[in-house]
Amino acid sequence: MDPRIREHAQTVVDHSLDLSAGDDLVIRLPAEAEEFAVALHEIAGDRGANPIYLNNSSRARRAYLRAREDDFETPDHHLALNEAADAFVISRGGHNATEQSDVPPDTTAGFNRANKPVQEARLEADWCLTQFPTTDRAQLAGMSTEAYENFVYDAVSLDWDEQREFQSQMVEILDDAREVRIRSGDETDVTMSVAGNETINDYGRANLPGGEVFTAPVRDSVNGTVHFDLPLYRQGREIEHARVRFEDGRVVSFSAERNEDVLAGVFDTDENARYLGELGIGMNRAIDQFTYNMLFDEKMGDTVHMAVGSAYPATVGEENVVNESAEHVDMIVDMSDDSVIEVDGDVVQRDGEFVFE
Amino acid sequence: MDPRIREHAQTVVDHSLDLSAGDDLVIRLPAEAEEFAVALHEIAGDRGANPIYLNNSSRARRAYLRAREDDFETPDHHLALNEAADAFVISRGGHNATEQSDVPPDTTAGFNRANKPVQEARLEADWCLTQFPTTDRAQLAGMSTEAYENFVYDAVSLDWDEQREFQSQMVEILDDAREVRIRSGDETDVTMSVAGNETINDYGRANLPGGEVFTAPVRDSVNGTVHFDLPLYRQGREIEHARVRFEDGRVVSFSAERNEDVLAGVFDTDENARYLGELGIGMNRAIDQFTYNMLFDEKMGDTVHMAVGSAYPATVGEENVVNESAEHVDMIVDMSDDSVIEVDGDVVQRDGEFVFE
Repeated sequence: MDPRIREHAQTVVDHSLDLSAGDDLVIRLPAEAEEFAVALHEIAGDRGANPIYLNNSSRARRAYLRAREDDFETPDHHLALNEAADAFVISRGGHNATEQSDVPPDTTAGFNRANKPVQEARLEADWCLTQFPTTDRAQLAGMSTEAYENFVYDAVSLDWDEQREFQSQMVEILDDAREVRIRSGDETDVTMSVAGNETINDYGRANLPGGEVFTAPVRDSVNGTVHFDLPLYRQGREIEHARVRFEDGRVVSFSAERNEDVLAGVFDTDENARYLGELGIGMNRAIDQFTYNMLFDEKMGDTVHMAVGSAYPATVGEENVVNESAEHVDMIVDMSDDSVIEVDGDVVQRDGEFVFE
Repeated sequence: MDPRIREHAQTVVDHSLDLSAGDDLVIRLPAEAEEFAVALHEIAGDRGANPIYLNNSSRARRAYLRAREDDFETPDHHLALNEAADAFVISRGGHNATEQSDVPPDTTAGFNRANKPVQEARLEADWCLTQFPTTDRAQLAGMSTEAYENFVYDAVSLDWDEQREFQSQMVEILDDAREVRIRSGDETDVTMSVAGNETINDYGRANLPGGEVFTAPVRDSVNGTVHFDLPLYRQGREIEHARVRFEDGRVVSFSAERNEDVLAGVFDTDENARYLGELGIGMNRAIDQFTYNMLFDEKMGDTVHMAVGSAYPATVGEENVVNESAEHVDMIVDMSDDSVIEVDGDVVQRDGEFVFE
């Protein structure tokens, strides 16, 4: 086994989770990540935790979604599992990122709605989402397998204390902020209030790699247009050049140059899928290239991302409303050129470089 | 996909289980059986059931068992899952049947004790244990992969109505029986009462392939010696030529020519692991060779098997005691030569041939 796989598992358990003896742990990985599963079971055993091992298979999921014709139901057994669990490790890294490309978006949206309580139970526990490097994901990134393995293991093994310190500068700025304005190129100019909301310093806990700070926009305060110029994969399909117009928080119009229907499916999942749940600012300088993988892309140091759909409750202050939705879809704006982030009128990042760097 | 994989999944759902719309289904397979998982998800979707997919990885299990040093606990999350589930499909067919050969038998026994409630919750639901043919299991059987695939798919696609009819003749004999005596060669001569207990006709439901009838011996009635001349795999180790002496139901002495310590570990799991929980008579003529796989071997038409440990509650009459144990270990006697099964003094099988064949 590549020794970095064991190190990765140790980082998950020792840094990302608060795993204790007696904890009931859910390990949910694609089959391709078997060596990572072995390492996680080894360390779970060492710490006296109790693992259950779920197979996160996009092929099986696709077959199920396409075959099901009636309405989806909340699976009581999966809900019971998640409610009883103390901690979750979930990894990406299966074969074929486009596996669900021939599932109708409405079907996936219906499945997500029915499984919202299952997701929520997981989000209330201690959890970490991470990545196993596979040949398929290397191909998606346009990289050799070895270079991609290096990329993933370098990104997850950052000095997270140092990264936390670096990011805390941005947390301080946003915690005191009222209004954030993001401008990029000719098309993106959006303002939103973050007054009263909390900013989270993501230094590799819920996401490994971490490397962003994020908060929730005040639900009805978002106004302007955004051209999400970096693509994203959703339900196995690549959405390119999404353009979205917000009025009083709500998405009032949108387009995409590819797979617009998938984007429409997201917005139609429920009413709150048309509101932003998250504003995130990428700050991880170790992630130096775009790999078509949101877990990494959104952490890049010269990007911002906004997610439509659910807000993380911890980011929403007592006086504001938590946007609840079965969706949470991150979309990215490249801020490396002709771009500026302003907080209460002060520039905090220009062309990808923070003022405190 | 080999069309027999979909047919196999349909047999599981339509014949082995009573799956209905809305049922919460647990699919627990080794990663190697991904195509079977895809087929099962497809049919689960078609029937309106809700699947959760567990990875039955012996490598991960081994890593966990070896690393854990304190006492095992019952995992509440796995118990909650199993208690909430309506149906289970479990498949064998991972890589390397000897994967757990370097786990101390005491460790596995401790794990089994802690997980007994999890197992019991599954046994109370609707369940089916079946097989996916892998190269490793073909090798274990000493067969080419193609020949082994044919063997497995022929065995699971039997005409189960016809098989049920054939086996019902043996069920009638045992249901009226008081004493069963099994003699084979110079070493095996054992008697046991089955009075008051029920005989189950296994025509491919809880086990696919099926092809046996089985009952429970009256707990304290077993007397004599048995030479289990066909080997079995237990915890990744091959136990060969187990010889066991019973007095008033209890195992009072035993030996094995290979891995005797594993057998000792079974008997030491708990007191009732020293008593028989099952007497089974193989009746499946489609299984015409020994493949070192209990799911098939015990169904062979000229074998009997006895399991130490837990009895199936459905086989135990109201006036008799259900033997409860964390173990259930089947062991086989070859009855093809110099062997006889007698029921209340009447020969019902001689040298592997039933009197009614």
